Amino acid sequence: MSAVASLGDLRTSLDDLPDGDEAAAQAIAGRQARLTKPAGSLGRLEELAAWLGRWQRRAEPRLDRVEVLVFAGNHGVTAQGVSAYPASVTAQMVANFERGGAAINQICRSVGATLSVIPLHLDAPTADFTAGDAMAESEFIDAVGAGFDAGPASADLVCLGEMGIGNTTSAAALAAALLGGGGERWAGRGTGLDDDGLARKRAAIDAGLKRHDAAVSDPLRAAMALGGRELAAILGATLAARRHNIPVVLDGFIATAAAAPLARLRRDALGHVQVAHCSAEAGHRSLCAELGKRPILDLDMRLGEASGAALSVAVLRAALACHLGMATFDEAGVDERG
Amino acid sequence: MSAVASLGDLRTSLDDLPDGDEAAAQAIAGRQARLTKPAGSLGRLEELAAWLGRWQRRAEPRLDRVEVLVFAGNHGVTAQGVSAYPASVTAQMVANFERGGAAINQICRSVGATLSVIPLHLDAPTADFTAGDAMAESEFIDAVGAGFDAGPASADLVCLGEMGIGNTTSAAALAAALLGGGGERWAGRGTGLDDDGLARKRAAIDAGLKRHDAAVSDPLRAAMALGGRELAAILGATLAARRHNIPVVLDGFIATAAAAPLARLRRDALGHVQVAHCSAEAGHRSLCAELGKRPILDLDMRLGEASGAALSVAVLRAALACHLGMATFDEAGVDERG
Repeated sequence: MSAVASLGDLRTSLDDLPDGDEAAAQAIAGRQARLTKPAGSLGRLEELAAWLGRWQRRAEPRLDRVEVLVFAGNHGVTAQGVSAYPASVTAQMVANFERGGAAINQICRSVGATLSVIPLHLDAPTADFTAGDAMAESEFIDAVGAGFDAGPASADLVCLGEMGIGNTTSAAALAAALLGGGGERWAGRGTGLDDDGLARKRAAIDAGLKRHDAAVSDPLRAAMALGGRELAAILGATLAARRHNIPVVLDGFIATAAAAPLARLRRDALGHVQVAHCSAEAGHRSLCAELGKRPILDLDMRLGEASGAALSVAVLRAALACHLGMATFDEAGVDERG
Repeated sequence: MSAVASLGDLRTSLDDLPDGDEAAAQAIAGRQARLTKPAGSLGRLEELAAWLGRWQRRAEPRLDRVEVLVFAGNHGVTAQGVSAYPASVTAQMVANFERGGAAINQICRSVGATLSVIPLHLDAPTADFTAGDAMAESEFIDAVGAGFDAGPASADLVCLGEMGIGNTTSAAALAAALLGGGGERWAGRGTGLDDDGLARKRAAIDAGLKRHDAAVSDPLRAAMALGGRELAAILGATLAARRHNIPVVLDGFIATAAAAPLARLRRDALGHVQVAHCSAEAGHRSLCAELGKRPILDLDMRLGEASGAALSVAVLRAALACHLGMATFDEAGVDERG
């Protein structure tokens, strides 16, 4: 991974993040004001067009190359009975992605995006975080690096998602460590836990927070102690995209929690990021609010595997089509406000 | 218009509306439960796939032919200073639609839908409803018939929208007549009214409600007295689609208000209808709640011209792609819940 071989390097790499292009965003807003529609009437489509241009650093943004990355990992915390599905499903779903049978395959085709699936040592789950650090520092850094390197060096948009039985528990524990509150605040039913399972999940999160109390004041140590490889990879890919001037759409609860340490380390580190949709998973609305992100879609989805992120590409494409294709008042001979 | 030549005929035509196909919807739900995802985890995408099948009356719904209809009309109530734009803009925007320069042209292309624009006597605005009925009965029936006939006899989905300077005022007055409350509850800023304009708009709505007090207990007479030709046409097109087993997506505030009389006449008359998006226009959230409709998108859009309806097609396409293309647990060899 380019120049990041330790937690210290990772921290340092946040010191000189490239900025968005304010002039491009202004040019886009200026054109929006001349297009044949009442000012602001395309709502978030206008905001999203400007966001794309700001972070692509061009006044005529593109969506020719949209890359969807799905990272997969396994989680030792499944030993605590925190998922409705057996851990075997992670690898089985990766195979399903590779054969084209999952939701994400259909949605990528529907919106014109390219899917890459990156399994991360599925045969070596992270440690059970109630008993120790989920990852050693070297494992965490390797996973961040895998995410950093998996992202394209040039693309118009990157969508990030995950697959990993047990990973809503890791994400909830990480969110709790970063933002306060415990299992009660952050645990949801994941893939479909019953009441007993939800109680076990809350207890596991609270046990993890207690065990790693010393680590949780440091966002990266919290991600190492409580997170997972696919979460670390999403963090790395989010950072890499910023370095390459590529806007990012994060999928749902887990992807948002995975990138959240960056925002805790540097307030504007997620400027280039949109959250695709508000997941039905319990903690997501609160997590988005804490990060100041308003999800693009709200469709009660809670599947993961970047399904919401890929779906949001359709909205971005429409935003861009309007921005680039509409006539101005002058061109169309339409009278302006009376 | 097929068998509707009077208000009485229109009322009668609601007596024998075709139902959705419960068996098709059940078959779709059954398949959704076997697809490789936790039950219900595609949220509204699953609901929308079943809705398409129910109203297309087939277990394998399609979206091969998606028709977007934009009806345009002019409004005498603009004399009350209720719009930020001059009435000339209605015809100018129709020309812009025809030349491909408007937002709806770009969005239709982006989602693979066919656009038809139907101007309705733009040179003869409806009467100012503060002074008399917006339309005579014959004018109203003609406009309903124009909408009924404009819709395709066979299509997989119809999206309905409108253009008409002043028509948020007509829509707000109609919503008030149907659902109670006055200008205060239902008037929004439309295309961008300032505070004085908003006050004039509220006053015009309240004056219209007072003047037509006797009519407003009858949903169709309210639409005739307070509505507009494009609103009446949307009502007709919504009814025609039901007769032809075609699901409908209504655009925003005006389109929803236009179809609302049908729901007041018969509680299940809008079963085949989704509301595409929650408009930023003030009254829309409340109107949707009154009709029991949850909009698919919520993007602060308030443009009209079916822009939100067309955009929602992208979500429907993804819903359908998942439903038709995903592997089942059996096919993929993925373990089910532990």
